[in-house]
Amino acid sequence: MSLITLTTDFGLADGYVGIMKGVILGIAPDARLIDLSHDVMPQNIRQAAHILAGAAPFFPAGAIHLAVVDPGVGSARRPLVVSTPDACFVGPDNGLFTFALAAPGAQAWVLDRPQFWRPEVSHTFHGRDIFAPIAAHLALGAPPHRLGTPIADPVRLKPTRAERLGNGTIHGHVSHVDRFGNLITDIPAAWVASGRWMCEIAGRQIDGITATYAEAAPGALIALISSGGAVEIAVCNGNAAQQLGTRPDDPVRLWAAL
Amino acid sequence: MSLITLTTDFGLADGYVGIMKGVILGIAPDARLIDLSHDVMPQNIRQAAHILAGAAPFFPAGAIHLAVVDPGVGSARRPLVVSTPDACFVGPDNGLFTFALAAPGAQAWVLDRPQFWRPEVSHTFHGRDIFAPIAAHLALGAPPHRLGTPIADPVRLKPTRAERLGNGTIHGHVSHVDRFGNLITDIPAAWVASGRWMCEIAGRQIDGITATYAEAAPGALIALISSGGAVEIAVCNGNAAQQLGTRPDDPVRLWAAL
Amino acid sequence: MSLITLTTDFGLADGYVGIMKGVILGIAPDARLIDLSHDVMPQNIRQAAHILAGAAPFFPAGAIHLAVVDPGVGSARRPLVVSTPDACFVGPDNGLFTFALAAPGAQAWVLDRPQFWRPEVSHTFHGRDIFAPIAAHLALGAPPHRLGTPIADPVRLKPTRAERLGNGTIHGHVSHVDRFGNLITDIPAAWVASGRWMCEIAGRQIDGITATYAEAAPGALIALISSGGAVEIAVCNGNAAQQLGTRPDDPVRLWAAL
Repeated sequence: MSLITLTTDFGLADGYVGIMKGVILGIAPDARLIDLSHDVMPQNIRQAAHILAGAAPFFPAGAIHLAVVDPGVGSARRPLVVSTPDACFVGPDNGLFTFALAAPGAQAWVLDRPQFWRPEVSHTFHGRDIFAPIAAHLALGAPPHRLGTPIADPVRLKPTRAERLGNGTIHGHVSHVDRFGNLITDIPAAWVASGRWMCEIAGRQIDGITATYAEAAPGALIALISSGGAVEIAVCNGNAAQQLGTRPDDPVRLWAAL
Repeated sequence: MSLITLTTDFGLADGYVGIMKGVILGIAPDARLIDLSHDVMPQNIRQAAHILAGAAPFFPAGAIHLAVVDPGVGSARRPLVVSTPDACFVGPDNGLFTFALAAPGAQAWVLDRPQFWRPEVSHTFHGRDIFAPIAAHLALGAPPHRLGTPIADPVRLKPTRAERLGNGTIHGHVSHVDRFGNLITDIPAAWVASGRWMCEIAGRQIDGITATYAEAAPGALIALISSGGAVEIAVCNGNAAQQLGTRPDDPVRLWAAL
Repeated sequence: MSLITLTTDFGLADGYVGIMKGVILGIAPDARLIDLSHDVMPQNIRQAAHILAGAAPFFPAGAIHLAVVDPGVGSARRPLVVSTPDACFVGPDNGLFTFALAAPGAQAWVLDRPQFWRPEVSHTFHGRDIFAPIAAHLALGAPPHRLGTPIADPVRLKPTRAERLGNGTIHGHVSHVDRFGNLITDIPAAWVASGRWMCEIAGRQIDGITATYAEAAPGALIALISSGGAVEIAVCNGNAAQQLGTRPDDPVRLWAAL
């Protein structure tokens, strides 16, 4: 257990991420450190949860995922470890780990043992003072039950889940806009695995789900299955978000073609 | 052979680079991972090839260079390994490795052995499903001939090479604009090693090639030799690209002063 | 001594940082490399010095801090190592290491032994040709006195220190604007540890110093103590820099409330 990933909304300009790494390496000098993203939109818990849920399954068993998107820092919000059979998650109790909590055997622990933190805890940077040291102790092999106390009520985000209506229509949303302007929705691939589907987004209609970007003409608006297993809207060799003016949470509608 | 560099157009916000690293470390837990750039302009193969060609010579022998700028993902474009006496290169067969293919002893291999890939290969993310696992197997010591089949016709970019005309004039182009707004051209330093040269770019003339930024007055437009060994246009303590309105592929002309 | 941090104004797009890492690993293959920031504003020595001073104390003893913000590259400005009982610092002699030089036992050395550099030294990229090799040799255990010659007059930045006036008023400045738009000042926390303080910035008044972001209402303009131990101005769940139109070096005034 010596691989630690880091996900924050700190950006990379200010040195805050480097400080957390310095604290970790002071406790666990051999830990491997891998950045997932530090460009989460400031205080956007849902976006960080999406990135974490998409990336964690691709890491080896025993990985420790440190995530600090923490608008409630300094308040009564609890510091948390979530353990699953595959991984550990460390960060504030604000919904970041909703997907991990859904895993069979998941257990949440409130971090209430200051002897594992930095001696002085600031009001504004628990990433440095609590979460980095805890991740380092996990990397050294400390089990969660030594670092905290089990709780039954960790915060879970309400999923903005797509809905399947009786008439074969699916109502979903854009859950993530990536760097290429691709629009990843909250509609699982399994829902559209068979049959031919029509799609409507931002007043534009798309006929059918394409297998690959390469199958369509450059500039074409297409629906396809994302690398994460969801319905995705893209412009072939272009930027769908810019072209459609679409943003996270905008609606997407699919229906079975006759 | 356990150092892997990564070059992509994925950006660092979405977690895609982290996912590739997770896949690599699941196969080759001891691999060293070094980012070259993930801010290649989306689908700009030429820019990625330029960065890779500039950086690879500075890595120790045996380095593995993983590059994923892949507008053809999901199409018939081939997945590739290129080996040279010094290094291995892994990525799509679209010209990214043009410079490596020019090395004496270079050999290209099409990746056609799915047993070395992830079990399920998506249509949209071969960086995760094919190239990351292949880089990891190379890091573990697998030779290229176990991972693929030799080919003689890998894709090569047509170099937008500068030209030397008979009358002592050089026609070249801006091949890269860096973060400081410095304009790196495709004119080799060796061509201007002796004599005094005049330079014209964006309607402005520069008299002579300066040895260092520090030799000129702040704000002065100068020509000098870049750290990569090409003619470079810069504004001393300023931003030449902004000041001249210059972009990649814009023309540069040099001629021997009388 | 095998942990090296890197701080530059190179950005991450052009591959320059990766090149420095390649050079380091060619000399010291086992060095740990940790990025502090590569998004220092171009040639902003003061900002880099601030990031370095804030981060270095959180790294384990023996860390080597490589910093390249180097507007004088190629000029007569000296290449430097600064050693303290806790760490080493490598980079140009332009004030980057002012805070380290203030440590008891600090010693500066001019780097004047080219046998420890790359064989060819460019005029434009001493980060690659001098500083990266020197950091690598330090990581291998070479003591500073083998790499250079002691000097007594390294460049120090004039601190834009806040002032305490006789009448209980403090005049300070914004020294750093972070990614969240928080305004970190140059006023030490110790100066406002007791009593109630009023604060004025950009024509707005703030009554009292708040313990945490969470204590205030969303949108409220507050003063608090930063994670680095200075007075900080913030908008709760908002962006103070944008809202006030405030920039580095803008004045901040505090006075004891009656």
